[in-house]
Amino acid sequence: MDKILRINMGADGGPSVTEVPVGEYAGLGGRALTSAIVAKEVPPLCHPLGEENKLVIAPGLLSGTVAAMSGRLSVGCKSPLTGGIKEANAGGMAAQVMARLGCAAIVLEGKPKPDTLYKVFVNKDGVKITEANDLKMLGNYDTVAKLQGEFGDKVACISIGQAGEMKMSAASVAVTDMEGRPTRHAGRGGVGAVMGAKGVKAVVLDDSGLGMRPAKDPEKFREANKEWVAGLKKHPVSGEGLPAYGTNVLTNVLNEAGGYPTHNFMWGRFEGHAKISGETLAALETERGGSATHGCHRGCIIQCSGIYNDKYGNYITKQPEYETVWAHGGNCGIDDLDVIAQLDRLDDDYGVDTIEMGATIAVAMEAGLAKFGDGEAAINLVKEVGKGSHLGRILGNGAAVTGKAFGVERVPVVKGQAMPAYDPRAVQGIGVTYATSTMGADHTAGYAVASNILNVGGSVDPLKAEGQVDLSRNLQIATAAVDSTGMCLFVAFPALDQPETFQALIDMINAFYGLSLTGDDVAALGKSVLTNEREFNKAAGFTNAHDRLPAYFSRDALPPHNIKFKVKDADLDDVFNW
Amino acid sequence: MDKILRINMGADGGPSVTEVPVGEYAGLGGRALTSAIVAKEVPPLCHPLGEENKLVIAPGLLSGTVAAMSGRLSVGCKSPLTGGIKEANAGGMAAQVMARLGCAAIVLEGKPKPDTLYKVFVNKDGVKITEANDLKMLGNYDTVAKLQGEFGDKVACISIGQAGEMKMSAASVAVTDMEGRPTRHAGRGGVGAVMGAKGVKAVVLDDSGLGMRPAKDPEKFREANKEWVAGLKKHPVSGEGLPAYGTNVLTNVLNEAGGYPTHNFMWGRFEGHAKISGETLAALETERGGSATHGCHRGCIIQCSGIYNDKYGNYITKQPEYETVWAHGGNCGIDDLDVIAQLDRLDDDYGVDTIEMGATIAVAMEAGLAKFGDGEAAINLVKEVGKGSHLGRILGNGAAVTGKAFGVERVPVVKGQAMPAYDPRAVQGIGVTYATSTMGADHTAGYAVASNILNVGGSVDPLKAEGQVDLSRNLQIATAAVDSTGMCLFVAFPALDQPETFQALIDMINAFYGLSLTGDDVAALGKSVLTNEREFNKAAGFTNAHDRLPAYFSRDALPPHNIKFKVKDADLDDVFNW
Repeated sequence: MDKILRINMGADGGPSVTEVPVGEYAGLGGRALTSAIVAKEVPPLCHPLGEENKLVIAPGLLSGTVAAMSGRLSVGCKSPLTGGIKEANAGGMAAQVMARLGCAAIVLEGKPKPDTLYKVFVNKDGVKITEANDLKMLGNYDTVAKLQGEFGDKVACISIGQAGEMKMSAASVAVTDMEGRPTRHAGRGGVGAVMGAKGVKAVVLDDSGLGMRPAKDPEKFREANKEWVAGLKKHPVSGEGLPAYGTNVLTNVLNEAGGYPTHNFMWGRFEGHAKISGETLAALETERGGSATHGCHRGCIIQCSGIYNDKYGNYITKQPEYETVWAHGGNCGIDDLDVIAQLDRLDDDYGVDTIEMGATIAVAMEAGLAKFGDGEAAINLVKEVGKGSHLGRILGNGAAVTGKAFGVERVPVVKGQAMPAYDPRAVQGIGVTYATSTMGADHTAGYAVASNILNVGGSVDPLKAEGQVDLSRNLQIATAAVDSTGMCLFVAFPALDQPETFQALIDMINAFYGLSLTGDDVAALGKSVLTNEREFNKAAGFTNAHDRLPAYFSRDALPPHNIKFKVKDADLDDVFNW
Repeated sequence: MDKILRINMGADGGPSVTEVPVGEYAGLGGRALTSAIVAKEVPPLCHPLGEENKLVIAPGLLSGTVAAMSGRLSVGCKSPLTGGIKEANAGGMAAQVMARLGCAAIVLEGKPKPDTLYKVFVNKDGVKITEANDLKMLGNYDTVAKLQGEFGDKVACISIGQAGEMKMSAASVAVTDMEGRPTRHAGRGGVGAVMGAKGVKAVVLDDSGLGMRPAKDPEKFREANKEWVAGLKKHPVSGEGLPAYGTNVLTNVLNEAGGYPTHNFMWGRFEGHAKISGETLAALETERGGSATHGCHRGCIIQCSGIYNDKYGNYITKQPEYETVWAHGGNCGIDDLDVIAQLDRLDDDYGVDTIEMGATIAVAMEAGLAKFGDGEAAINLVKEVGKGSHLGRILGNGAAVTGKAFGVERVPVVKGQAMPAYDPRAVQGIGVTYATSTMGADHTAGYAVASNILNVGGSVDPLKAEGQVDLSRNLQIATAAVDSTGMCLFVAFPALDQPETFQALIDMINAFYGLSLTGDDVAALGKSVLTNEREFNKAAGFTNAHDRLPAYFSRDALPPHNIKFKVKDADLDDVFNW
């Protein structure tokens, strides 16, 4: 991982590649690297779809090694959805393959001529960029199938569907999983639209002939990884809950807590929750010959995913995540897993963020375009996005644009990005993260649900303002660091609760790179990532006024607790004071 | 003008009216009053369509008197288009009538129950609010005809069309003219959407039985008004150019200067300019039995407007303004006055801002929805807005939303509001106003075209950065003051060039109110209005980063001068340092 591939899509005579040493960015990976490059090289006031923006794709520091859970891929740019800096990450195989190819980052730059689409192929012999007009307006599934036909089925693909080509602000970047399916998405913030604006349909990665990345101290690295794996296995969340039921284990938990947003954030409980819970989902997957326990990349030992088949046993989609089940399910009043799975498949195929799409459909339902609970109508609305109809152009640009188009006031977004599956009134800590994250409303940026609801990493009353700012601050710092390692965020559960597991992660990095980092260094890295991002956002015009939830969360009480968001503005402004 | 009518549309049991003394707002009129009320009473982070926003309608300080040109009506709120404070003003009869009714302002507050539309009637006996569901989804022309049927044809009407009811961000508030037609619009910033969100279709004003407002010193007031009228008549712009050709006299002038934006701000000259110039327009109006010289309200002596008939002599619309002819004409490559007049009529009827609509159609043309120059296609696109189709929902929300929906980079907006008919690269002074105005891109906020192109109020080279900041600053201060008097902005031409005319305006205010204001007091008023507005915008999240043109104006040179916008960011940040 000592080189960066810079691909200028706007070069005279067609796209050109320059391979440069990592240089000043050495020692950074994942989000730390994407945010450093974007903050340094992208003018904060540029148009997200213009030539000055850059799409940075980067594996994490430990990707491509034998370290368990090290397969996250970061995608960064100026976001067309938020107007601020963006890092979205995904599982799947690409991070491991890219790291073994020695690429710390691929940077797509410039602006291509219109009407030509390209594909980028990277293997041990170098980079080839060729026309890909035959892939125009194909979904991710067909795109990947064609690419596998051309390059073999061992490659890892990073691609966009129709939404990215149409430069929609909800467009994602897809990454293929272990089965070569485009089911893993860097979903949030419209990163797929930026890839579309660069005219790149797919990046195909082939690590044939290359082995695992070698550690500086192989023995210490192996030992640390062993301790690491043991820690993940013994924690109840990463060792039991997630393998058995996946992330959707949270449906019943959040519903019980009264923090499960239903009908466009109108209520905190959904009467149909049991029909779409993780327990029901896992049983159904198993019954239909799919799988309830499955990993998204080699080296995953948590296996939080699964395979969702239809009633005839035919593959539909990977196991929909909790946030997807919520977005397309409870938030829209839909309690039918087959409908939700079909929506998940459509989203993956068109290449749109499931959270943004579900929140958007709920806003459209509030505007009267369909009835809450009408699954068929929801499917038809999402199909409009794939078609690129005028309605699809509205919906595919997310909840904020949809609210604007139809004059809806209750639009649950921060910095233009839709809130995920936790109501900030009943889970006040996540409200602090939604409000203040550099990314817009984002649960992964500082998952306060852990201590608010799951009693992981301590326990903070979810219904009170007290303690939420400290909780969110610490989690945001830790997350920025974890997002830089290539580690799946779910390692945070054991790492927060078990000091020896956190130490094992540091030991792995130290053994691999020949360093002697401490826990303080990790925190310093997290802070420096956030500082980079905050600086970019400030220059892009963000102020404290943008670190706020929509006003109605402080005005309208959420049943069943009949509670409002209570964290004071002045306290929100204290999140980044360290 | 010693009372404010506060109408709470969200009161239990239906809308309720409270008549209160002007109190702390005494001595303010027009924009000074609307901005003071909005800045003080509207939470900057509220949703523009929510219950916390207020729509403030206010005549100027001299409205309702015999003072020539005193018929401007200000409409203020938090803007759904820009997210900042907004004052849009209109001519027509309402300001005079409202002032004679003693109303300093009507304030629409709260949020009504859905599905009921109301009309407000005010005469010397008081205020009546009644259901108006029979007016639902009528255009302004039909609305006004029905209201005149009910209340007589002497009333002045303030109304919204379909766009306002649908809460579109380009929706205007219409005001009837001397003929009782809804041709005068507070166009910018979506003020009509806020009226729609308040559930008010129309405010009907009847001053039967009431006379002119009396001055404290009638003799001095009469003398000052005489001097005032003489000053307006002797200046070449207000005394000759505007009466003869209207505002559209500028088409040839700006085209010659290379500052006439064509094809979505691609070039600075339009080959079809002569076919749509003010000279051609005036001749055609006269030939068809319309009129090329006409006022929009009683007391107007400039008479910059006209009557546009079709080739059979039937009324189509009032004389389209220069900015309208440009927006729907040159900016879309259309050189057919009949097409432009029809678009003007549609805009007035649906109630949308002609500048925003024209800029939006050009962006849609760039996105490939129609060809530049295709008048029929442009008409069909605007008709989608009236229908409220999905496409209409995109277009009716303005250029920024349209650019986002269709992934267009070249969208000429500042703070979300479309630029008017002067390219900021060839008229750099107006670029400073576009960038820094509290209102978003707005030519009237500080009409630097005067000294850049027309040599009024001095002369500043339009192609150079030097002097533009001082020019824009002084004009923005003066304009904020003029917008508070109820005076038509065109009085600024003689007032800038002729000290005795400026003094006559001050003498009128002093004689009317028994004051002894000086020119310094007028400047202080302008500064205080701007300060109020800047404070609101700051609290709403605006920073210096929002006081910028889109990046491409500094990157792409404009033919024929091949010039970029050259005023430095640091100098833009100096506009409000006084």
